[in-house]
Amino acid sequence: MAMDIKSSLTELEKLNADLYGKDFLLTWEKSDKEIHAVLKIAEILKEMHAQNITTDMFKTGLAVSNFRDNSTRTRFSFSSACNLLGLAVQDLDEGKSQIAHGETVRETANMISFLTEAIGIRDDMFIGKGHTYMKEVAEALDDGFKQGVLNQRPPVVNLQCDLDHPTQSMSDLLFIKNHFGGFENLKGKKIAMTWAYSPSYGKPLSVPQGVITLMSRFGMEVELAYPEGYDLLPDTIEVAKKHAKKSGGSFKVSNSMESAFKNADIVYPKSWAPFKVMERRTALLEKNDHAGLKGLEQECLANNAKFKSWECDEAKMKLTKGGKAVYMHCLPADITDVSCKAGEVSASVFEKARIGTYKEAGYKPFVIAAMIAACSKKNPAKVIGELLKTNKKRVL
Amino acid sequence: MAMDIKSSLTELEKLNADLYGKDFLLTWEKSDKEIHAVLKIAEILKEMHAQNITTDMFKTGLAVSNFRDNSTRTRFSFSSACNLLGLAVQDLDEGKSQIAHGETVRETANMISFLTEAIGIRDDMFIGKGHTYMKEVAEALDDGFKQGVLNQRPPVVNLQCDLDHPTQSMSDLLFIKNHFGGFENLKGKKIAMTWAYSPSYGKPLSVPQGVITLMSRFGMEVELAYPEGYDLLPDTIEVAKKHAKKSGGSFKVSNSMESAFKNADIVYPKSWAPFKVMERRTALLEKNDHAGLKGLEQECLANNAKFKSWECDEAKMKLTKGGKAVYMHCLPADITDVSCKAGEVSASVFEKARIGTYKEAGYKPFVIAAMIAACSKKNPAKVIGELLKTNKKRVL
Amino acid sequence: MAMDIKSSLTELEKLNADLYGKDFLLTWEKSDKEIHAVLKIAEILKEMHAQNITTDMFKTGLAVSNFRDNSTRTRFSFSSACNLLGLAVQDLDEGKSQIAHGETVRETANMISFLTEAIGIRDDMFIGKGHTYMKEVAEALDDGFKQGVLNQRPPVVNLQCDLDHPTQSMSDLLFIKNHFGGFENLKGKKIAMTWAYSPSYGKPLSVPQGVITLMSRFGMEVELAYPEGYDLLPDTIEVAKKHAKKSGGSFKVSNSMESAFKNADIVYPKSWAPFKVMERRTALLEKNDHAGLKGLEQECLANNAKFKSWECDEAKMKLTKGGKAVYMHCLPADITDVSCKAGEVSASVFEKARIGTYKEAGYKPFVIAAMIAACSKKNPAKVIGELLKTNKKRVL
Repeated sequence: MAMDIKSSLTELEKLNADLYGKDFLLTWEKSDKEIHAVLKIAEILKEMHAQNITTDMFKTGLAVSNFRDNSTRTRFSFSSACNLLGLAVQDLDEGKSQIAHGETVRETANMISFLTEAIGIRDDMFIGKGHTYMKEVAEALDDGFKQGVLNQRPPVVNLQCDLDHPTQSMSDLLFIKNHFGGFENLKGKKIAMTWAYSPSYGKPLSVPQGVITLMSRFGMEVELAYPEGYDLLPDTIEVAKKHAKKSGGSFKVSNSMESAFKNADIVYPKSWAPFKVMERRTALLEKNDHAGLKGLEQECLANNAKFKSWECDEAKMKLTKGGKAVYMHCLPADITDVSCKAGEVSASVFEKARIGTYKEAGYKPFVIAAMIAACSKKNPAKVIGELLKTNKKRVL
Repeated sequence: MAMDIKSSLTELEKLNADLYGKDFLLTWEKSDKEIHAVLKIAEILKEMHAQNITTDMFKTGLAVSNFRDNSTRTRFSFSSACNLLGLAVQDLDEGKSQIAHGETVRETANMISFLTEAIGIRDDMFIGKGHTYMKEVAEALDDGFKQGVLNQRPPVVNLQCDLDHPTQSMSDLLFIKNHFGGFENLKGKKIAMTWAYSPSYGKPLSVPQGVITLMSRFGMEVELAYPEGYDLLPDTIEVAKKHAKKSGGSFKVSNSMESAFKNADIVYPKSWAPFKVMERRTALLEKNDHAGLKGLEQECLANNAKFKSWECDEAKMKLTKGGKAVYMHCLPADITDVSCKAGEVSASVFEKARIGTYKEAGYKPFVIAAMIAACSKKNPAKVIGELLKTNKKRVL
Repeated sequence: MAMDIKSSLTELEKLNADLYGKDFLLTWEKSDKEIHAVLKIAEILKEMHAQNITTDMFKTGLAVSNFRDNSTRTRFSFSSACNLLGLAVQDLDEGKSQIAHGETVRETANMISFLTEAIGIRDDMFIGKGHTYMKEVAEALDDGFKQGVLNQRPPVVNLQCDLDHPTQSMSDLLFIKNHFGGFENLKGKKIAMTWAYSPSYGKPLSVPQGVITLMSRFGMEVELAYPEGYDLLPDTIEVAKKHAKKSGGSFKVSNSMESAFKNADIVYPKSWAPFKVMERRTALLEKNDHAGLKGLEQECLANNAKFKSWECDEAKMKLTKGGKAVYMHCLPADITDVSCKAGEVSASVFEKARIGTYKEAGYKPFVIAAMIAACSKKNPAKVIGELLKTNKKRVL
């Protein structure tokens, strides 16, 4: 069922969104129009790829990847996205200390950008740091561009920070939008964003925060569930509430996986560390307190272990709408008896959902490419129109 | 003496080989037609490069390199090959543990492949592991493609495993084919694939295994020689025997370098570790037995030292056909008094053959590119025909 | 104020410089014509980038980066330059021991170059080593090309060695040429290349050596100033003297920052290690004498500390021509109270000059690209002319 690219392009033009010269850091900073424009471009690019049409809107140009945390999947998504647009990726791989502060950030941001058209940053380890760093880079680029150091202002794309993970949540959104047959059909659908047990510790909060803040914009009934103490950043809770109210959906917090799963159309069970623990961890890291960090890890793993029952198993899936909610995960999942002894999801539940989660991830390269296109082109619809007109085969 | 590209293309079409949608893992899994098709494409691409014609059959697309063992030469060959076809290389660089098993391999193979057109893997350290891993990746890709996760099925190219080193052996083959003026002229030629002394230990078996299994298909007289105990994998010996019989050549194993060199047209003296030692090594590594590994290394080096006379020197070269056999090596060679005190080859023999070995290596990027082209194009001859018609200068 | 590309191209043609088939290792090996040709190409490429015209004179091809010392800025400059020309960068990242000597260099240089169009090397750590290594690579390439191993002879570009840092000094030169409105206006201008205090030790000498040898060719009054003992390589002093004499400028060495700053139009205060210390360091490193190295570092830092007054502060800036000399630095600068307690430059002086230093750095990608273009094209003006005629938009 091939998408009609031409009519999608017309819809994109009608949105009349303007992200040119901006960054893509947090979804809740963007208007509905802007979110829809990025999603539309992502879908168009995905379809053009499927139809073997080249989408190299850049003939030369660098894209900089700056991963301040390990990553395989996101690295490949970013590389794929940039390559799809015609950009070559150059990794910025400095020690954290070297690019941490003030003048160093200002200078480095300019030094890497003379011929750069996009910058992707992942910095999700420390509460209060990642988003701040991205803004610092963005400001340095603004300054460099304004002062004539740079011929162009490369957009900064958030590949995961302490607050949000927009490339993930927007891929998640496209996955369920297509599963249910359109944004309209998401209205009233219940999504359970729940904590789940994992034998590891310190997983970022950006995925659940990204999901509750984004899905609440689409009229969905969002239930966030976690064991007592595993709170998210309070600000993101406020955003979700506000969005739910505006969109005609709902937002609810509970401490029961069962409550959240009940009648859910979609479940998203995933481990994370409590916000307050992440704050303590940041403080200990800043003091280089290794003993303190080790102690905190032990304490948390012990606390986690109390909640081994927070596993997405067949019994809990039976509670969902018709027993067959869509299972989502950002991957890799901790699968009981597969990747660990006890984890976020049972092997049988995961196996049935596995291909779905792969497809969910498959939107990410196109979402990233769409963010870059939307933020670096005055009129993305016109640019895509030119590519369609040229209609160059991507693969001979 | 420029090759006639057009007539080569006609020959390629006549071969009517079909590698589309397949991988290139072991030469002995491929038919003669398929081997010849890859070799033909490699020669055509090499000639197009020499004639400054662009061969970018991909306009965008990633190629993934997955090196589970260090490599400089193969890395550059792969990068060069992919670049020649228009692909950008993204390295997959995970710890071995992370991509070792089951779901992790299945998932990673898909996660890295949404926009990927070729995957090159080197995994030659452990007997029984490398080829198995490549097949696991290939199966995951089959599944992902069938289930609609991937728009395309990127071929897996074996950049060296525990069994075979096809990109090396096929480059070797092109080198001698061109040296002797055609495949016909290889019939009856004697090639001595012999062990040689090296002060290091644990060199893979894939080169000698790749050479005896491939050269035996071309009617050559293959003599494999090694000191007692330095056996290759028994299966590869069986393949070589079968091939020799079918091709009208011969295959013989001896324990004498002199016997192998006698009247040889080609000599390929190269160190390797005994198959049984490699098996013990794999077992020790799996148990993380560092003391055992150290002991095994000492034992092997001591055993190696008994065979320092297995050096390719001027005296042994005199035994060859007219005293001037072609010397081959996959590089880097252990050269006596140059890279070590006593090694595989004397300085004077190597110096005379040096440029030849460089040229031998020079086929590799084109062989890799040919494997990718053959496995990812329904009709490679047609695609190359289009490139020839476009006739875009590669370098202005 | 857009440059007129066409008339620049005519000027380039008139220069009739011939760098084809050569390397770019030391500026003082090049004729004035050759220097001007590279600078002209750099300016043309910079303007074409600003005017959004694609400059991909290579459709495929690799560029090899070989960084034997850490680098972020130069790495990005090289990547940017190669991408601008259409080349893909592949990093050569071997341990130093592996590519240090004789046959290994000869072989590796060829193995990485089958499809390679440019090689950038940074090797600035050891006196007597870097330039020697680059020449060894260049000779191996000459040999490989002559013997038919390589279809092309990729130029070697010096990205910093023990003697010179041509991509830096030529970017510096373009910066001041444009600041003062042309090469003619540099005549008689005074430039103070001075040592400055830094809390670190062992900074290379190639920047001051590169600056004094290049600026002295343009009729400038070059004053080199450093505390007693912080001498540069004597040969480079001789070159600067010779150049000054020929160009009608002057070259003077003093031991006073104030003397150098007096009436200077341009100041370039920057730390370096004494030549003799660098020689001792090389000797200790070769012996793997860790205690000796530690001792040397302590000794040097103690000696450095005697010269904390060698800081470029407001008071010293007041000594310069009208109190407002152009401040230059290759970045990153050691800024007092910003990146260290006491450094090369005061925060207030740096802040005023900051954007200027960024622009100074902004020439580097284009200078590198120009060196590659000049050394790999028989007629760079003709090639650029073709690109102008094609007039392909670089960014849609």
